[in-house]
Amino acid sequence: MTPADPTPVADIGFVGLGTMGRPMARRLLDAGHRVTVWNRSAAPVAELAALGAVPAASLQDAFARPVVLSMLADDDSIRRQVLDTGVLVDAECSVHVNMATVSTGCALELAAHHREHGIGYLAAPVLGRAEVAAAGALHILAAGDPQWIGRLEPLLLTLGRRVWRLGPEPERANAVKTAVNFMVANAIESISEACALVESFGVERALFTEVMTETVLPGPVYTTYGGLVASRTYQPAGFTARLGLKDVRLAQAAAAANNVPLPMAGLVHDALLQALAHGWGEQDWAVLSEVARTRAGFAARQ
Amino acid sequence: MTPADPTPVADIGFVGLGTMGRPMARRLLDAGHRVTVWNRSAAPVAELAALGAVPAASLQDAFARPVVLSMLADDDSIRRQVLDTGVLVDAECSVHVNMATVSTGCALELAAHHREHGIGYLAAPVLGRAEVAAAGALHILAAGDPQWIGRLEPLLLTLGRRVWRLGPEPERANAVKTAVNFMVANAIESISEACALVESFGVERALFTEVMTETVLPGPVYTTYGGLVASRTYQPAGFTARLGLKDVRLAQAAAAANNVPLPMAGLVHDALLQALAHGWGEQDWAVLSEVARTRAGFAARQ
Amino acid sequence: MTPADPTPVADIGFVGLGTMGRPMARRLLDAGHRVTVWNRSAAPVAELAALGAVPAASLQDAFARPVVLSMLADDDSIRRQVLDTGVLVDAECSVHVNMATVSTGCALELAAHHREHGIGYLAAPVLGRAEVAAAGALHILAAGDPQWIGRLEPLLLTLGRRVWRLGPEPERANAVKTAVNFMVANAIESISEACALVESFGVERALFTEVMTETVLPGPVYTTYGGLVASRTYQPAGFTARLGLKDVRLAQAAAAANNVPLPMAGLVHDALLQALAHGWGEQDWAVLSEVARTRAGFAARQ
Amino acid sequence: MTPADPTPVADIGFVGLGTMGRPMARRLLDAGHRVTVWNRSAAPVAELAALGAVPAASLQDAFARPVVLSMLADDDSIRRQVLDTGVLVDAECSVHVNMATVSTGCALELAAHHREHGIGYLAAPVLGRAEVAAAGALHILAAGDPQWIGRLEPLLLTLGRRVWRLGPEPERANAVKTAVNFMVANAIESISEACALVESFGVERALFTEVMTETVLPGPVYTTYGGLVASRTYQPAGFTARLGLKDVRLAQAAAAANNVPLPMAGLVHDALLQALAHGWGEQDWAVLSEVARTRAGFAARQ
Repeated sequence: MTPADPTPVADIGFVGLGTMGRPMARRLLDAGHRVTVWNRSAAPVAELAALGAVPAASLQDAFARPVVLSMLADDDSIRRQVLDTGVLVDAECSVHVNMATVSTGCALELAAHHREHGIGYLAAPVLGRAEVAAAGALHILAAGDPQWIGRLEPLLLTLGRRVWRLGPEPERANAVKTAVNFMVANAIESISEACALVESFGVERALFTEVMTETVLPGPVYTTYGGLVASRTYQPAGFTARLGLKDVRLAQAAAAANNVPLPMAGLVHDALLQALAHGWGEQDWAVLSEVARTRAGFAARQ
Repeated sequence: MTPADPTPVADIGFVGLGTMGRPMARRLLDAGHRVTVWNRSAAPVAELAALGAVPAASLQDAFARPVVLSMLADDDSIRRQVLDTGVLVDAECSVHVNMATVSTGCALELAAHHREHGIGYLAAPVLGRAEVAAAGALHILAAGDPQWIGRLEPLLLTLGRRVWRLGPEPERANAVKTAVNFMVANAIESISEACALVESFGVERALFTEVMTETVLPGPVYTTYGGLVASRTYQPAGFTARLGLKDVRLAQAAAAANNVPLPMAGLVHDALLQALAHGWGEQDWAVLSEVARTRAGFAARQ
Repeated sequence: MTPADPTPVADIGFVGLGTMGRPMARRLLDAGHRVTVWNRSAAPVAELAALGAVPAASLQDAFARPVVLSMLADDDSIRRQVLDTGVLVDAECSVHVNMATVSTGCALELAAHHREHGIGYLAAPVLGRAEVAAAGALHILAAGDPQWIGRLEPLLLTLGRRVWRLGPEPERANAVKTAVNFMVANAIESISEACALVESFGVERALFTEVMTETVLPGPVYTTYGGLVASRTYQPAGFTARLGLKDVRLAQAAAAANNVPLPMAGLVHDALLQALAHGWGEQDWAVLSEVARTRAGFAARQ
Repeated sequence: MTPADPTPVADIGFVGLGTMGRPMARRLLDAGHRVTVWNRSAAPVAELAALGAVPAASLQDAFARPVVLSMLADDDSIRRQVLDTGVLVDAECSVHVNMATVSTGCALELAAHHREHGIGYLAAPVLGRAEVAAAGALHILAAGDPQWIGRLEPLLLTLGRRVWRLGPEPERANAVKTAVNFMVANAIESISEACALVESFGVERALFTEVMTETVLPGPVYTTYGGLVASRTYQPAGFTARLGLKDVRLAQAAAAANNVPLPMAGLVHDALLQALAHGWGEQDWAVLSEVARTRAGFAARQ
């Protein structure tokens, strides 16, 4: 298949059946595509096979399909499972769409490797959690060869409600993803500090977050995290402090590579690290609010 | 008039006819109230008189109405025009509603002075700019004696779409106002840093802010300031860097009074101070984006 | 007396007999000067009178001597005791040397007031604590009319080992004093963070601070505070966290007046505020080390 | 050779003949030891051979001496030249003393590799530059098996004036080295901010740094960097901003591994990154002062 090939995509390799990968693969199956799935552990493969997927005989087998989508956890996973395995050397696919949140450095490295082996490479990280993926309502941040993006857009629209075209260099999509996550972290820290401030004056946290979201700061981030911060509910975690720290570090690494100081990232990094130091790493990153409360000595005051 | 008095409020003193005060006084007139207006300079008084307001013979005359609303610029203004003039000593009003953004410290001081002179005191700072005031669509953050708030709510609803009841201590309303403004400052800094990051990867700023507002961070703050930051438009200023710095300092002062560290406030304070140092004090506080670009040396790169 | 007057200074008014003022006044007496002392409370006056000082009949009496030295606690004290009392209006002194640590803003204001009343004004804050004052070994940071500084240097050398001439504008001396104190605060924070880091690796804090002071960071600040931080000894306080916070704020105010961002000041400010929030305000400001240990969750780890 | 072996050390492999390694190897030669030298490039080997060193036939040859000292540039160098080459597999040395500044993570990894291959491993990073090394006046921060340290101390005292014993885990020495460097960075930033503050009041920078070093902050760091900052001399660089940034990152990485927030490190990191963004990466890290001046807009003021 080449970017100009008019045939509808139908034969897909799908690598990485984690929390996000499973509902995404399922949507491809539901749309009638042939999906050859591969995962490091067996159970998710069986689950998808029961829904009509073809279990790949090997990772190489998955990379023998014309189009490969992957949704691996992070830089480490993709390094270990794609780069270190040498699967690209004899891969028969035409294009590989990496939908994971990886670093911009990893994106640059992957793009070079694929180029070397004559395989198209798109970065297409997504905004949205598992339930959004299941509903096909993800935002897909795509970057890479525009012809490939154009060619694959109908397929990607099976997975998301919108495909954002961010330019010809794949790492741009990862930069944008990481910048958005960074802004979410900043918003949580902002809510946390503001709540500590008003709490010190005796204002109910829930009343304050209602003012906030009903006036100038509406939307899912302020509503969701405002709610968690107001009620001091950090478990079960939608997204853990530990993963949040990892995301902030992606922003810091991307920025450092280009000599862009990000003061807020340093601040939020330290606050998340403090959360980990206090044993809150597996709690929702809204636990930043407890870090703000610790700073203000609220426990010591009572 | 006492809080229990069932008579509709109709005889109002209004002090401070600035950018916000004028449209507010006008709405009271339009609603049929008798409004006695006072302002340090004469022109706005004449403007309102032409619309049916009664020019006050003196500040004392304005404070002789049963209900006095004031919309003075800041702590300094209210100190000079209300505290230092001694107008409260012989004031005949029953209640004074201070709708300006003043410090929590000033609020505490004002509450004490009014109590001493037997006058009710409400803090009722607002969210919204002049055009919102003209449309009667402000959010009014009210705190003080709940009976007075209840009694005056119909009147306040002439000015705003919603009256938030934030508790019996007036300074709470000022704490909430200042906390919301602080969060807006944080959001602008967050947009600025994120834009510097993606710009360093060659992503169009306007494309990034569109992703941001169409996905997880919608709403007026991100839309407005995202637009200004993307287009690097800082004039005419909706709200200047100089005023923004003043607001951040209100948050810092309120927090310091209660021993609440606010790391983000320190960071945004320094960024705004840098804006002033570069001669950008009268530009819109979205100019925080240029501070982020200076840090990243974008001018030096070209 | 004028700056050109060749007569040795001998008739001195001394205002403010606190921890620093007492040993300073005593040194002037020991050197044979006539010292007319005034203090808000009576006990220190009696103490100095027993050593040969002349008790002033009033503040005005002290300001009737040709040379007045004052060592009041801070801006508030000097405002209440000098500006608000109107003592300058009929003061007969030729020159007033303000040796207290006041803000640069206060220095500007005082200089203007003295000029208005035809009185010379020098700022001469000092480096050194009470025992250093008793030994006449202070460093005196002097600024103001160079003729006056030249004229009074012999007198000042009774109090200190060296007079630094910092220029014709009095506020410069206060800027330098505040900058030095700010650097001391930074050094304590630096020691605190570094100790938290090595402690997390199991290195004895005292061993680390010995390495530090015996290699690249010798001197009284690192030795004194290294010792306190290593042994976690915060009482009795040589200088409290509360006073440290006040000094950091002087630096912030001086910097803000000139649009100079000081990121380290914001950071140390927040750390000291956290100390106050935890009830450590009256402990030595070396307690910054406990703030660093709190951030790192050392208590939670054990 | 074992730790108990009483024979004086005489047969040494020395790996890495850079700016620091050359004078160190030379001192060993001057003290009469047999030194087998190895370096990636040939010129320094020839230089040392002319002074009596034995050129190693290979890296393996150097690692065949009973005691190996190495002074490679950084983590990358030691990884590429020691770990990746597999030289440890058949190394005949009894102990390897790594005198380079590497990360604590790298130290842990190296310690494990040496243990696996039955080779003693000491971390012994040094404080002092090339001229200090030439004078044998380094401070040697040693950690690892205390028997080895005891055994090698006479040899190390050929290179330094003092051997600090920092405990049995090698990474502790690296933690201490990195913490000291971090404190030096903080001191330079502190000087830079303080100078910007006093400069804004018209105080001569050189006068201020003289006050600073002659009163409470003496010692080589404040004197050296005070001088550079006062005179705004950043070339030739004693230590570049780029290397300074690398060192700050070592502190951040060590701290992050143990969940220790270091706010000052974040701040100095961003300031150094800003220096790089402005093209000052190869200037002395005293150029932090220009970053402070940029923040304060001094260029824009003139």
